[in-house]
Amino acid sequence: MKLARFRINGWESYGLVEGAEVRAIQGDIFREYSISEATYPLDRVKLLPPTQAASFWAVGLNYAAHVAHQEGALDAERIRREAGVFRPWQKGVNCIIGHTDPIVLPPEADYVHYEGELVIVIGRPARRVTPDEARHFILGYTCANDVSGEGSWSKDLTNWRRKGSDTFGPVGPWIETEVDPHRLDIITRLNGKEHDRGSTSGMTHDCYAIVSGISQFVTLRSGDLILTGAPGAVEALHPGDVVEVEIPGIGTLSNPVEAEKNEAS
Amino acid sequence: MKLARFRINGWESYGLVEGAEVRAIQGDIFREYSISEATYPLDRVKLLPPTQAASFWAVGLNYAAHVAHQEGALDAERIRREAGVFRPWQKGVNCIIGHTDPIVLPPEADYVHYEGELVIVIGRPARRVTPDEARHFILGYTCANDVSGEGSWSKDLTNWRRKGSDTFGPVGPWIETEVDPHRLDIITRLNGKEHDRGSTSGMTHDCYAIVSGISQFVTLRSGDLILTGAPGAVEALHPGDVVEVEIPGIGTLSNPVEAEKNEAS
Repeated sequence: MKLARFRINGWESYGLVEGAEVRAIQGDIFREYSISEATYPLDRVKLLPPTQAASFWAVGLNYAAHVAHQEGALDAERIRREAGVFRPWQKGVNCIIGHTDPIVLPPEADYVHYEGELVIVIGRPARRVTPDEARHFILGYTCANDVSGEGSWSKDLTNWRRKGSDTFGPVGPWIETEVDPHRLDIITRLNGKEHDRGSTSGMTHDCYAIVSGISQFVTLRSGDLILTGAPGAVEALHPGDVVEVEIPGIGTLSNPVEAEKNEAS
Repeated sequence: MKLARFRINGWESYGLVEGAEVRAIQGDIFREYSISEATYPLDRVKLLPPTQAASFWAVGLNYAAHVAHQEGALDAERIRREAGVFRPWQKGVNCIIGHTDPIVLPPEADYVHYEGELVIVIGRPARRVTPDEARHFILGYTCANDVSGEGSWSKDLTNWRRKGSDTFGPVGPWIETEVDPHRLDIITRLNGKEHDRGSTSGMTHDCYAIVSGISQFVTLRSGDLILTGAPGAVEALHPGDVVEVEIPGIGTLSNPVEAEKNEAS
C-alpha cells in the first residue's frame, strides 16, 4: 500500500496511490481512517512530505561502500574512526521538503552533494523496543535525499548547516507499507543519468537495529522520519540540475536544484 | 508580560500570568489573540512547556566561565579548540518537558548534570535577519535546564543521548516578553541550595547574534526555542533531587529527578 500526503485546490489530505491516481483518505493514518470515493489524477495534485514529522533523524556512515568513498573525499582518519559507531543525530524538520520542491543552494556553499537514502517512517510511539519488536512500530518506508554541503563552514563542529540548511531534506514521494527494507536497490540519478546504485542489504545497522537503538533513549513518535545512510558514492549538485532518488518497489523522489535568490536583487 | 501555556481539567490554553493567577487567552499568541475574563489560581493549573516548538536548538560553550569549568571535567584540548566557535545544534523536541515534570535518569547514565540556561522564544518566522533585526523576531525569554549525561556512551560522536534523551530538556515556567536578555542572572539550585550564579552579560554570542546566525541557513519558526548556553559550573543530579533554574525577572523552573522505572519490574 502506498500512502501519500497531497494538496489539491488548497486542501490537504492523505491518500492511497493507485496507479496514476490518488484516492483520498478520511481520518488519521496513524489511528483510524477510511478510504473515500474521491480520486484525483496524481499529476494534478502536489505531493507533500509524506508525514508532518516531529523529529527528523539521520544515521551517518551506515554503509561500508559509502565510508570508503568518504575516506577519499574527507578526513580519512576521522571517517575510519567514526565508521561503525551507531550515531544518530537530528537533521531537523526545518529542512524537510517534498517531491518536486526545489533544493536551494545557499551562496555560502562551495560544494553541495546528494545522498540517496531509504527512510524509515515510524507508525506508533516506540520506546525501549527490541530489534525484533521494531518492525511493529514502523509504518513503512520512503526515499530521501540527505543533501550535504561544504563551504565557508568547513570548521563547523555540528551538521547544523552542512546537512540541516533549509531544503536539504527532500523526502517522498510517498510511504510504501509492504516492502522488505533490507532487499532494496537505491538508485541516484543526476539529470537522468544513473550515478550510483546500492543495496540496502549493505547497511551496518539495519532498520530494526536503528529504531531499537534510538528508542532506548528517545520516544519515537508516529510520523517521525529516520534517514538510514547513503550506500555509495555522491555527486555535486548545481543550479539547473534535477536529482532523483529511486527505490524500486517504493517510488522516485525528484527535485530540481536552484541557487538561492538574493531578496535584495 | 508573562505568557504561560497551561492545562486545567483536560483543557489546554495560553494565559497571562498575573501574580498568583493565570488569565486565559483566546486565539493564537503568535498571530491574533484576546484576553479573556477567565482566571485560575496558578497553583491549580499544570504549566506546560511554554510553546509547542517545531525545533529545539542549543548553542554550546557560549560562556568563558563554563568553558573553563568544562576544561577541568572533560577533554581540555577539545574544549579549548571548540570554545568560541558558533555551533548551534538541534537538541530535539522529544526531550522537552515542562515545569514540575520529572527529569528521568536512564540506567545507562553514570553521571547526569544540570545546566541552567536562558532560552530564546521565536515570535515569527526569521530567515536571513541581521543581529539588529533579530529582536523583532523574538517573542520573549524563558528558563531551561540543558540536562546532560555521561555514561556507557562516552564514545558517542553526537549529543543524541548525552543531551537529547527523553526528559533532558525542561523548559519554563513561562515566557517573559519584556526583559533585557543580556542583563539577567541565572541561578541554579539543587535541593534548595544555590550552586551556581552567572550573568547573561557573559555570553560569547549574544541572543541577537544567535538568532541572526541560525537564520542565515535555517528558517526559525514561531515557537522555536533556542538554549543559549550554561554560564558556569554544573553539578550532578540524583534520584530524589529537585533542581531549580531561576532567572530573576522571568521566573523559576523546578523539576524533580527520578530514576527510570523498568517496566518489567
